[in-house]
Amino acid sequence: MLPLITLLTDFGLTDSYVGVLKGVIAQIAPEAKVIDLTHEIAPQDIASARFTLMTAYSYFPTHTIHVVIVDPGVGTDRRGIAFRNDHGTFVGPDNGVFDGVLPPAIEGMPANPEPTTTVSLTKSRYWRTLTPSTTFHGRDIFAPVAAHLAMGVPLIQIGEPIDPTSLIRLSLPSLQPTHSGWQGTIQAIDHFGNAITTIPGNRITSQSWHVEWTTRHKGATTPSPVNIPGHLTYGDIPRGDWLALIGSHGWVEIAVHGGSAQQHLRLQVGDSVCLCLDSQRLR
Amino acid sequence: MLPLITLLTDFGLTDSYVGVLKGVIAQIAPEAKVIDLTHEIAPQDIASARFTLMTAYSYFPTHTIHVVIVDPGVGTDRRGIAFRNDHGTFVGPDNGVFDGVLPPAIEGMPANPEPTTTVSLTKSRYWRTLTPSTTFHGRDIFAPVAAHLAMGVPLIQIGEPIDPTSLIRLSLPSLQPTHSGWQGTIQAIDHFGNAITTIPGNRITSQSWHVEWTTRHKGATTPSPVNIPGHLTYGDIPRGDWLALIGSHGWVEIAVHGGSAQQHLRLQVGDSVCLCLDSQRLR
Amino acid sequence: MLPLITLLTDFGLTDSYVGVLKGVIAQIAPEAKVIDLTHEIAPQDIASARFTLMTAYSYFPTHTIHVVIVDPGVGTDRRGIAFRNDHGTFVGPDNGVFDGVLPPAIEGMPANPEPTTTVSLTKSRYWRTLTPSTTFHGRDIFAPVAAHLAMGVPLIQIGEPIDPTSLIRLSLPSLQPTHSGWQGTIQAIDHFGNAITTIPGNRITSQSWHVEWTTRHKGATTPSPVNIPGHLTYGDIPRGDWLALIGSHGWVEIAVHGGSAQQHLRLQVGDSVCLCLDSQRLR
Repeated sequence: MLPLITLLTDFGLTDSYVGVLKGVIAQIAPEAKVIDLTHEIAPQDIASARFTLMTAYSYFPTHTIHVVIVDPGVGTDRRGIAFRNDHGTFVGPDNGVFDGVLPPAIEGMPANPEPTTTVSLTKSRYWRTLTPSTTFHGRDIFAPVAAHLAMGVPLIQIGEPIDPTSLIRLSLPSLQPTHSGWQGTIQAIDHFGNAITTIPGNRITSQSWHVEWTTRHKGATTPSPVNIPGHLTYGDIPRGDWLALIGSHGWVEIAVHGGSAQQHLRLQVGDSVCLCLDSQRLR
Repeated sequence: MLPLITLLTDFGLTDSYVGVLKGVIAQIAPEAKVIDLTHEIAPQDIASARFTLMTAYSYFPTHTIHVVIVDPGVGTDRRGIAFRNDHGTFVGPDNGVFDGVLPPAIEGMPANPEPTTTVSLTKSRYWRTLTPSTTFHGRDIFAPVAAHLAMGVPLIQIGEPIDPTSLIRLSLPSLQPTHSGWQGTIQAIDHFGNAITTIPGNRITSQSWHVEWTTRHKGATTPSPVNIPGHLTYGDIPRGDWLALIGSHGWVEIAVHGGSAQQHLRLQVGDSVCLCLDSQRLR
Repeated sequence: MLPLITLLTDFGLTDSYVGVLKGVIAQIAPEAKVIDLTHEIAPQDIASARFTLMTAYSYFPTHTIHVVIVDPGVGTDRRGIAFRNDHGTFVGPDNGVFDGVLPPAIEGMPANPEPTTTVSLTKSRYWRTLTPSTTFHGRDIFAPVAAHLAMGVPLIQIGEPIDPTSLIRLSLPSLQPTHSGWQGTIQAIDHFGNAITTIPGNRITSQSWHVEWTTRHKGATTPSPVNIPGHLTYGDIPRGDWLALIGSHGWVEIAVHGGSAQQHLRLQVGDSVCLCLDSQRLR
């Protein structure tokens, strides 16, 4: 089985940092295949890294080693960690980036299995150097550890066991029932300008529904100028029209057919969104 | 022979969409090598995807499977297709992105061979799921189909045969003779700001030649302020000077030595360009 | 040993140029692994390509073939070259991009070994075509040559031997002693906005130190508004504060904890920076 490592960082693609990670991996695990999830996470945006990993890891083979290096606390006493569950192996800083792959289940996502083994990366024999840089643990600790795991070093050997419930979690706004449906938030905006909410598609229990939202701008909150009707697909409406639909991640998304909802509707991550069920419940 | 798959999308590199495609492929065809053509096609820009595929595919081994996912019609009744010709295998939506690899020959490009087999991707056993997302056929249909092809599933088995002449074509401006040469258009502008015309380099049948063009801006058309003289290479002129030359794709390009023709000359895709042959014909 | 090739270009990721390089390599060396260092070098920025290669190559296995295609002189009589030293093999234009991997040592970097073999790429049998494009030697000469080297063609066979001391060098500002420390320049600014100086971290021979700088803007030079105190790591100071530290490359860097020094301090490549040792020397 060809070892497989994914990389998810905020390094950008301008510098040599990503290439250096791959060079370090190639020295230790020459046969390993390395796949970039993205390197365009906004600098130090832990919540965004969490979303990206959460929505990607389940599509990979279970022997994949996912390395996340979005690490504003590098050089402090934040822990470096690795853990395995039934879906894969994860390596990176203990700062919340792994929140989306830890139990309990995220609303609308498959249940996350409990980690079977969790370790703190304290064993310097698996680092690139005994004196790692205070600013680039990706190169000196996380990439080498992932490469050694890819070469078959047991997870339990690569660090000291720690309690998986001690891992840092992010506190995220949860889904709330309202008198006409559910209230959530915008958790991500993608490259196309689609606004992905925290409302799972399976909460649409009515044939007719729409969404409303509240944006914040310079401290003031503004309600949505119009209600966005729900549809099943872009093909249901003319180009340029607004719609809400169940996106490929399984959550309700606000979109513009052939355009950018972010740009047209000035939506932002964190904006409050309501799913309003207009008619009789189906179930 | 190592299976080889290329990806050409408008997904950008910010989200996990590209990583997800590679995860899906790795699950089905772990040994396949995946090469990114680009993921920076402007959202839903079919003409640009066509140009990029057309100018890239002939440099790859003939067993390569080229996957194109620029798909504004996803979720409508547009077909998903796959076909093979003597240059490679192609998988994606039937919306014109494959126009540049179908016969007849594009002026200035090698002749495109006829497809030997063409199928509509209706066989759900080769999809990732029986209920594909209405917005992400790349993940649920095109990537899995490409991976199965990479694993040796015969093309004829992966879908239902269709008439290759039924594939959607783009209607593109053709090359026209003028009293002093040829009139074409700018078909692409590259990362360096070079403006690539539709005029094949072999139409330069005179030792002395220049180009003229007409730009459109806010409805008004403006002729080129100067004629750009033709040269063989950047080295013939000082840095900062304008020139026209035969670019690496084989077409006449308008360029600035050490700068961006797009920026300096405000050229746009679709602008009309004339190749003017100044002296006696050579052939 | 799996052949390994890295690519470092100014091609960007929008066009098919990078994909074409990989297609050409796949035709000649199907098993070779190809790693992108970056394709986002600013167009024709030789100094930036030099920095990126210099700070990356030593992390790769010694059998790696590093291809650099930042080539403003393409189509002129600049030479195409390849050379090997104890750290790797290098292929590209002779224009200074390899300055950082040639001896003598760069201040603050490990010593660069002498090239063992250096050739001029004049043997067209290892090119893609006998009539290479005047604008894309990457596709027609450098990538094919690298692929043939990856397949085991001896370096000495792939071109004509030339004197390694004849390779083009860049003249770069050197480090100067001052009455209170050392004066250098900003040699690069990374994706995070960190300003990387030419001052090696081992010149910090005092427990207390700070940096000062002079920026140039529209011809006027402005001294730094404040002195930036030296620290060991980001964790030593609050978020938003300015600091200087020894970066992961080993040089003194000017940074903002959780922000961009480039943006906050308007630093530019080439700005003059002084390391000031405040108290008694340690060594």
